Amino acid sequence: MANFGLDDLRVVNPYDIAFREAVSAVGGAHVLKSARVFGSVGDAVADCSLVVGTTAAQKRELQQPLERLDTGMPPLREHSGQAALLFGSEKFGLSNDDLSFCHSLLRIPTAPETPSMNLGQAVAICLYEYARRVPATPRRARSDAIEGADAEQMTKMLLDVLEQSGYTNRITAISTEQKIRRWVRRMRLGRRDIPLMLGILRQVLWKFRDSEK
Amino acid sequence: MANFGLDDLRVVNPYDIAFREAVSAVGGAHVLKSARVFGSVGDAVADCSLVVGTTAAQKRELQQPLERLDTGMPPLREHSGQAALLFGSEKFGLSNDDLSFCHSLLRIPTAPETPSMNLGQAVAICLYEYARRVPATPRRARSDAIEGADAEQMTKMLLDVLEQSGYTNRITAISTEQKIRRWVRRMRLGRRDIPLMLGILRQVLWKFRDSEK
Repeated sequence: MANFGLDDLRVVNPYDIAFREAVSAVGGAHVLKSARVFGSVGDAVADCSLVVGTTAAQKRELQQPLERLDTGMPPLREHSGQAALLFGSEKFGLSNDDLSFCHSLLRIPTAPETPSMNLGQAVAICLYEYARRVPATPRRARSDAIEGADAEQMTKMLLDVLEQSGYTNRITAISTEQKIRRWVRRMRLGRRDIPLMLGILRQVLWKFRDSEK
Repeated sequence: MANFGLDDLRVVNPYDIAFREAVSAVGGAHVLKSARVFGSVGDAVADCSLVVGTTAAQKRELQQPLERLDTGMPPLREHSGQAALLFGSEKFGLSNDDLSFCHSLLRIPTAPETPSMNLGQAVAICLYEYARRVPATPRRARSDAIEGADAEQMTKMLLDVLEQSGYTNRITAISTEQKIRRWVRRMRLGRRDIPLMLGILRQVLWKFRDSEK
């Protein structure tokens, strides 16, 4: 991260001893020292209006757009709000729940028979690509993308509607939650859509409650 | 190396214990197993007609052409004979003697104040760049964008929900309809999202009707 001029490291539920005893590379002490620990991915990206996940894309059917690292990096590079690049653990990668917080996914093109990468190397390659060149004519970046906390509020409220309408019972609740979370992030909502959307959901919930009296 | 389809690893005067006890990453066993040990850089590159060195290029006056990784990689990639990419030790990099075997030098562009890189990460980035191909064809357009009829069905059903929940009364109906119509089309919905979305709306409407009985 220090090599490529980045410093906002956020760590979710790290293995405590390893994290506390981690020694930074030359010139990277400030990154490790200022790293923040979070209890969940949702908390870690709460102020981010763009979350891009990384995956070897081997096992799962992915629900988000998956792009090659070099062609998929420009939107992250040009994003004008707070953006996050999300990596999973060395062993398991990102879970389906983790993935549901992502707007899109990147994969590093590798030899087909050896897709699994060392985490530190994968991070280095992604940040190299991030810093690689300055785009000549940057596309206009969206400045009004909604932040993680707003997206999560909408997700929760929509889930309330689904549960109270009896929808959620029809399929397993967890897969619904992930599905809805992904879906909210995939919509092209801007900040000014939030009051409208929350207003609609609030009204539906009110109607549910009112009719039960 | 295995991640990027390379397998001819040559090691010069390795620290013996570390090298013998090295454990390869997943899928990389064959690279480590077939690695050859040499007593000097000269021996290691004896059969190579192109040797490209890597350097942070900080301290020394360099005698060879120094290129940025991305612009300097094509000659290596396109070389028809045996070519070597040469890395120095983690601590000291390539010595002046090592450098004298090189035809040219590459440097990974880094933040000016943090030029020194972890060896494994530097190798990964160089091999990523080596294997990276410039995309020949533009990205494929999304073929699963929803059609107007689907969008309209969703718009109408959403408006039903708004009306029956009492939402629409609060603002003028026409502006709501236009707002919702624009909004549905601005969402990044694909065709497979339609059944989910319509299912949710149907369920909410059903719940409204059911509670009025």
